[in-house]
Amino acid sequence: MDAKASQNAGRVMDGPTNPMVTPLLTDLYQFTMAYAYWKAGKHNERAVFDLYFRKNPFGGEFTVFAGLEECIKLIANFKLTEEEVSFIHKSLPGSCEEGFLNYLREIDCSDVEVYAISEGTVVFPKVPLLRLEGPVAVVQLLETPVLNLVNFASLVTTNAARHRLVAGRSKMLFEFGLRRAQGPDGAIGASKYCYIGGFDATRWFAEYFNVAAGRLFGIPLRGTHSHAFVSSFMVDYSNFNLQSPDEILERSLCSSDGSSTCEDFVTLVHSWLSKIQWLKSLGGIFGETNQSELAAFISYALAFPNNFLALVDTYDVIRSGVPNFCAVALALSDLGYRAVGIRLDSGDLAYLSSQARKIFHTIEKELGVPGFGKMIITASNDLNEETLDALRKQGHEVDCFGIGTYLVTCYAQAALGCVFKLVEINNQPRIKLSEDVSKVSIPCKKRCYRLYGKEGYSLVDIMTGENEPCPKVGERILCRHPFSESKRAYVVPKRVEELLKCYWPGKSGRSSEYPSSPWKGKVREELPALKDIRDHCIKQLVQMRPDHIRRLNPTPYKVSVSANLYDFIHFLWLNEAPVGELQ
Amino acid sequence: MDAKASQNAGRVMDGPTNPMVTPLLTDLYQFTMAYAYWKAGKHNERAVFDLYFRKNPFGGEFTVFAGLEECIKLIANFKLTEEEVSFIHKSLPGSCEEGFLNYLREIDCSDVEVYAISEGTVVFPKVPLLRLEGPVAVVQLLETPVLNLVNFASLVTTNAARHRLVAGRSKMLFEFGLRRAQGPDGAIGASKYCYIGGFDATRWFAEYFNVAAGRLFGIPLRGTHSHAFVSSFMVDYSNFNLQSPDEILERSLCSSDGSSTCEDFVTLVHSWLSKIQWLKSLGGIFGETNQSELAAFISYALAFPNNFLALVDTYDVIRSGVPNFCAVALALSDLGYRAVGIRLDSGDLAYLSSQARKIFHTIEKELGVPGFGKMIITASNDLNEETLDALRKQGHEVDCFGIGTYLVTCYAQAALGCVFKLVEINNQPRIKLSEDVSKVSIPCKKRCYRLYGKEGYSLVDIMTGENEPCPKVGERILCRHPFSESKRAYVVPKRVEELLKCYWPGKSGRSSEYPSSPWKGKVREELPALKDIRDHCIKQLVQMRPDHIRRLNPTPYKVSVSANLYDFIHFLWLNEAPVGELQ
Repeated sequence: MDAKASQNAGRVMDGPTNPMVTPLLTDLYQFTMAYAYWKAGKHNERAVFDLYFRKNPFGGEFTVFAGLEECIKLIANFKLTEEEVSFIHKSLPGSCEEGFLNYLREIDCSDVEVYAISEGTVVFPKVPLLRLEGPVAVVQLLETPVLNLVNFASLVTTNAARHRLVAGRSKMLFEFGLRRAQGPDGAIGASKYCYIGGFDATRWFAEYFNVAAGRLFGIPLRGTHSHAFVSSFMVDYSNFNLQSPDEILERSLCSSDGSSTCEDFVTLVHSWLSKIQWLKSLGGIFGETNQSELAAFISYALAFPNNFLALVDTYDVIRSGVPNFCAVALALSDLGYRAVGIRLDSGDLAYLSSQARKIFHTIEKELGVPGFGKMIITASNDLNEETLDALRKQGHEVDCFGIGTYLVTCYAQAALGCVFKLVEINNQPRIKLSEDVSKVSIPCKKRCYRLYGKEGYSLVDIMTGENEPCPKVGERILCRHPFSESKRAYVVPKRVEELLKCYWPGKSGRSSEYPSSPWKGKVREELPALKDIRDHCIKQLVQMRPDHIRRLNPTPYKVSVSANLYDFIHFLWLNEAPVGELQ
Repeated sequence: MDAKASQNAGRVMDGPTNPMVTPLLTDLYQFTMAYAYWKAGKHNERAVFDLYFRKNPFGGEFTVFAGLEECIKLIANFKLTEEEVSFIHKSLPGSCEEGFLNYLREIDCSDVEVYAISEGTVVFPKVPLLRLEGPVAVVQLLETPVLNLVNFASLVTTNAARHRLVAGRSKMLFEFGLRRAQGPDGAIGASKYCYIGGFDATRWFAEYFNVAAGRLFGIPLRGTHSHAFVSSFMVDYSNFNLQSPDEILERSLCSSDGSSTCEDFVTLVHSWLSKIQWLKSLGGIFGETNQSELAAFISYALAFPNNFLALVDTYDVIRSGVPNFCAVALALSDLGYRAVGIRLDSGDLAYLSSQARKIFHTIEKELGVPGFGKMIITASNDLNEETLDALRKQGHEVDCFGIGTYLVTCYAQAALGCVFKLVEINNQPRIKLSEDVSKVSIPCKKRCYRLYGKEGYSLVDIMTGENEPCPKVGERILCRHPFSESKRAYVVPKRVEELLKCYWPGKSGRSSEYPSSPWKGKVREELPALKDIRDHCIKQLVQMRPDHIRRLNPTPYKVSVSANLYDFIHFLWLNEAPVGELQ
């Protein structure tokens, strides 16, 4: 028994992040079928199902696979409670036999094997993301929850990766979608999967749920303030002056190093404001700034002198928001603090960010404040792939984008169509035919490989029968389109990567290599930390040939089958398809 | 203290359905703002926020409001745990004062008042769905979770209502979306809200979560079987005959009334199959049927003789699936059972359903089986509003539609843009201006009314200041467009309905009418049962003038403000908007 297997053997795995993900998060028909299988004495027949999708989302030619960890956590904890069994009993149409309920009480996934592609891997249509093998009735019960856990996870991760590709690697990307997400879990999942797809932070408490559960997502959090915060500061103009501001009661601020205290931070801000309002190099563009806004900024800075990030578009960005921000930031600078920057949430983001940047540079130069030009400019306001692309083409000075609705709801395409198809039962391959050739399933328990060329890019994915020899580095192999006779190519791979790895060997296993181990010899892949999944995803995208992942007219990546598998598919197809009769 | 208030007073309300909906399901900035408010001594200033949307979804002119019950459950249980407080402490940028943490430990919604439109009501842009009033810091903390709970709920309820309108009232509609929904909760929410919007059932265990929590959604469940169930039955053709079928071990079936037992149900099915294969009036359209499919149907019928619903398109609907179904259904009929019907999941649903119906009618007539013509035909396969509409125009014989992806992910428009705007603080009205006039907020704590005309249809919604007199039946009132000077109309309402009702009076309240009651005199509206919300929604749609809710070019419904409120909006607007300077 090797160290890895031993380590896994004793580990009790946590359940899915959302406690509502239980064996009952499934379609009723999975249980009606389980009963029919059981009645027919077929429930323990060994079945192999593939989970895959047929078309890449968002008009692209790639997808990022995600959701695996949640699936494995569901499978590891798959056990019906007595309450659930009695609920199933009540829900089945008609009455069912007590023997079936006893069967339900006993089932778990100890006899199920799960092979999967690593989470965060770039994947393509038709190649199984997960291969589940086990008693047909049990594996069928897993169909719906596993589809639910993979479909949105992969969709939103792909969406995040696409936003990252168009924004470029140097920009910060924040996920802002909680308020518009499709329910609480749409939001919780989105935060996790956007992070995997290359986002830098979320603005809400995604990781709380993991703190509570003793396991951290560890996604960075970011926060600023809203328009309402600014609007809530009302100023009696007749009364708001250096002597008697009406809102700010506590005006003192200790310097960053603790060595001194500024007793009247408000006055300090006002002195900076007059200074920059008359700065000649700014050409007098600053007008009378809005004093409620200034009061709001001062209050926020007094609360967060080390993290002052101001929303500057409540009134007028250039004439009020930016000068008010600069005055507060300069006052903070006097006390040894460094302001973070501004956020724009409306208007022409390219123009406004460039103007703001010019002002920051001018202040750095004219007033000799080092680093002032590098203030972070954050932009939000219904951003999506298209607007990011348009901004990049126009030129802008935004450092950091906050993206919400379009990201987390996958507005451009709200669903990924993963399917779960029976490919083998009792060692007999099964094919699902359809008049639409793109819907024909690829039969057999399969192995899947990614073949790499000499440039380091991946060239093609190939599926083979389970017992076919593995493609070898330097050896020529014929890769065939699964359904199109004429599409085929020889490949001499420089590197071969097996895609499907064992993430759940089943506690009983079927190998006898290590009979004393509860895992019986099958080494289970570790579920990596979130950060590692994210790194893997980013690395994967770098390994792709750029034309496969570009936004406009991307080249389809090739997915193939071995010559043997091709022949077998077409043998089965002819056998199963009825000969039509024209009348 | 009246009976209703007393009943509510002692009631401890359950928390939100999803246990992950806690006070931390919010944006970090709500807590950074709370700290800044607290530091500035402003946290207890009394603020009024409106939650509303700006544009109806799906190109329509109406929306159905949903999500209220979950909001009230959140608000009723809004209390930070010690663990949450320490997490907030760690998450705030920089350090915060201990006094703030003590403040966080104490806050709840006892000083918050929530007025809302009833769940399931047809609503329109700009009119507040919820009005939250309370200490500004607390109400800001509610912003994000309340938006999350209302946005998707209202969107998917509206989507369901639109599907119901196009399908017509006589059809059954099933929600099939669990596997493609945006996460587990996207599915759980969708089932509940599709039911409110007029769906009849879900095919999965939505209500389980409520059984567990001791409160039932009570949405009906439906189930059948999948293609994989059919494919899993393999037949050795050389061996499958009446004497030795290889799959079906237990062939006996007791009659419906328990009076007799058919020892060989398989043989009975085969005899019916030969009979209908040679039925002249069917013109010999039935070919050799697929025997694995037949074995699957027989097994399913033996398990569910009272609920036999067969998926008939695994091979060939008319040549195999329908005759196999009919043979099993006729055999069941011999034993006093009544089959439910068939499901079609591919192909030309209009044509196939019509053909299947003809066959059912022919069998009823020729073989004298009463009711056989009325077999339920269920259809699924990526259905949406458009395909339902196209089917209706072509003519079809489908009784029941299963709708999944397009329904639950709101594929046609994946987000509703509800916003949460400050309209008053310390009794001072606030307005949020924007260069885009559709984004200007309507200031003031308001009352909202729906005015009905003599036909019984609703004519217009009108918002007034809180202290303006209520519009009166039979009295002429001027309704003004909030932003467009020239758009105004006199209305003499036949009925006046106040839209915003008190769903959470705050435990301390502010009225002294019933000083001994914890609710202090404000009668809280009951949260109705799910079934009642659904009935309310259906009734609401009937009360709408048909041109407002039709699919093609619907007429916009009018939303107005009183003359007083109009004047006040424009007074504030001029006061707040900076006078531009052209350079």
